[in-house]
Amino acid sequence: MAVDVEELLSGLERGERRALARLLTLVEDGDPARLREIIAAIHPRTGRARVTGITGSPGVGKSTLTNAIAGELRAQGRSVAILAVDPSSPFSGGALLGDRVRMQGHHADADVFIRSMASRGHLGGLSFATPQAVLVMDAAGFDDIIVETVGVGQSEVEIAATADTTIVALAPGMGDGVQAAKAGILEVADVLVINKADRGGAGQLASELRGMLEMGHELEDPDAPPGWWPPIVRTVAVRGEGIDEVMAAIEDHGRHITSTGARDQRQRDRAVHTIREIALETVRRRFARLGAGDDERLQALADRVAARDLDPYAAADELLAALDSAG
Amino acid sequence: MAVDVEELLSGLERGERRALARLLTLVEDGDPARLREIIAAIHPRTGRARVTGITGSPGVGKSTLTNAIAGELRAQGRSVAILAVDPSSPFSGGALLGDRVRMQGHHADADVFIRSMASRGHLGGLSFATPQAVLVMDAAGFDDIIVETVGVGQSEVEIAATADTTIVALAPGMGDGVQAAKAGILEVADVLVINKADRGGAGQLASELRGMLEMGHELEDPDAPPGWWPPIVRTVAVRGEGIDEVMAAIEDHGRHITSTGARDQRQRDRAVHTIREIALETVRRRFARLGAGDDERLQALADRVAARDLDPYAAADELLAALDSAG
Repeated sequence: MAVDVEELLSGLERGERRALARLLTLVEDGDPARLREIIAAIHPRTGRARVTGITGSPGVGKSTLTNAIAGELRAQGRSVAILAVDPSSPFSGGALLGDRVRMQGHHADADVFIRSMASRGHLGGLSFATPQAVLVMDAAGFDDIIVETVGVGQSEVEIAATADTTIVALAPGMGDGVQAAKAGILEVADVLVINKADRGGAGQLASELRGMLEMGHELEDPDAPPGWWPPIVRTVAVRGEGIDEVMAAIEDHGRHITSTGARDQRQRDRAVHTIREIALETVRRRFARLGAGDDERLQALADRVAARDLDPYAAADELLAALDSAG
Repeated sequence: MAVDVEELLSGLERGERRALARLLTLVEDGDPARLREIIAAIHPRTGRARVTGITGSPGVGKSTLTNAIAGELRAQGRSVAILAVDPSSPFSGGALLGDRVRMQGHHADADVFIRSMASRGHLGGLSFATPQAVLVMDAAGFDDIIVETVGVGQSEVEIAATADTTIVALAPGMGDGVQAAKAGILEVADVLVINKADRGGAGQLASELRGMLEMGHELEDPDAPPGWWPPIVRTVAVRGEGIDEVMAAIEDHGRHITSTGARDQRQRDRAVHTIREIALETVRRRFARLGAGDDERLQALADRVAARDLDPYAAADELLAALDSAG
């Protein structure tokens, strides 16, 4: 199938949604030569959007929160793109998107662009594809990009953590606080949101979180520069309550990272993440080609491992040594 | 914390469950030096267990099916280990395990060993850890190892596909058949199980699956050796119905792969998978160390990318070239 990438790129520059949607599909497909062409072409025009990450366990109301925030941003006259990353929905990309479009309700307008990305294809696909999808949205000229990820694994947390501002959403009564802390999710939070705060237990969750933040603070390096204390905001996103406080927290945090130079550091961190994922994906493809069965070296190693003549670590060493020397 | 790996390894040889459990924790922790020691030590004693993979979408009743199969195997006097791999449960490893222990009901005895592994830590963790956890269970001397994975992504499907026999479980009324086909899950099925077959729609799902298998068959290379036609078995696992047919299908398939030499090929495929994952993890760790901020080369590349002076693909090329030449 012939895809005219150049045509799509000029469509993107003209602000065409269809071109944007098709470029995002190409990013998801992950063809390396095409991605290289796309990213190289758009990269000079990126770096202008404000990127907000929203993460949290299933069921805390992330989508509702995301939509409410998008509505606020639209009310401020800002254009918004939402990237909903859901590694647990390989089958339901379409359905999810449908739900979200319906959910948007009165916020549905041409300046909110929503894209769902589900795990499919290769290993580590979302860590690889997400930053590049954000670059494409950024090049499309959106003022705000919201990356919503289900906080189910370290990789999703990492994705969220590459945003300018990362919101960790929780809900009372899910036993979530302590477990989020254990999973390291609290560490990436710039803003903590207790959604569904009209339920019992919101106050207790807030004190729990405050206690954990204080504990974390005491452990910090006393010589570190004065940091950011993540505010804890209560919302009932489904009724739009507390969303203005969330917006204020995002803006406060934005000013904080600008004045301390942390914004530039986050841009660099995001670049590190993106470069590393591209490099890893390149290596992964080398290995996948080897594993396809046409590589005699790997097959010979596998035969010896299957015969219990060599253990898999020794085999991996031999494989890497062979790859390294092949350059 | 000092861990006496040698002591644990002799405990494993003596059949101690506690040693097995602790070794599996070490596998999950993923410390490379320790894993290398463990795998090298146990590898000569592996390759004896029958490995059955069970995969399918959430909600089809995989755990119930797994437990019912384990019960049948115990009734045959075989020892059983279950490895439940759930990438969507980083927070609930403990809870999940608790549920499963309760669920086992009358099958609970000392010869069914159950271990849940949830996604945590690094990227691609489960693809890396699972085959090694299977090796440890194999070395512990179990007759059967059942690897249960939620079929939510290609990586989980790959894990299941490295088994001797792979069961794909579906349920009626979930619109699952076509979507499983799209996601490539049917391709890895040696046995198809329609669980919850007392619900309406089981017949329709069976015809759908049969149609898709026939279509796939027609596309096959006509010169290929006579293959295996995945049987479609209906079960109501919660009442133990159809489990003997599933067992018969597993045994049929086992005879088939033995007589055609496919069993040896699967052992080699599993070795390829394991070697590749270990090699990839080694490279991933190299990159993670680079990303930790102490590598001037990556930081310099990230600065140029953040300044839009270099695009991330060009930066990844430079990084890989530097790594390759460093050996």
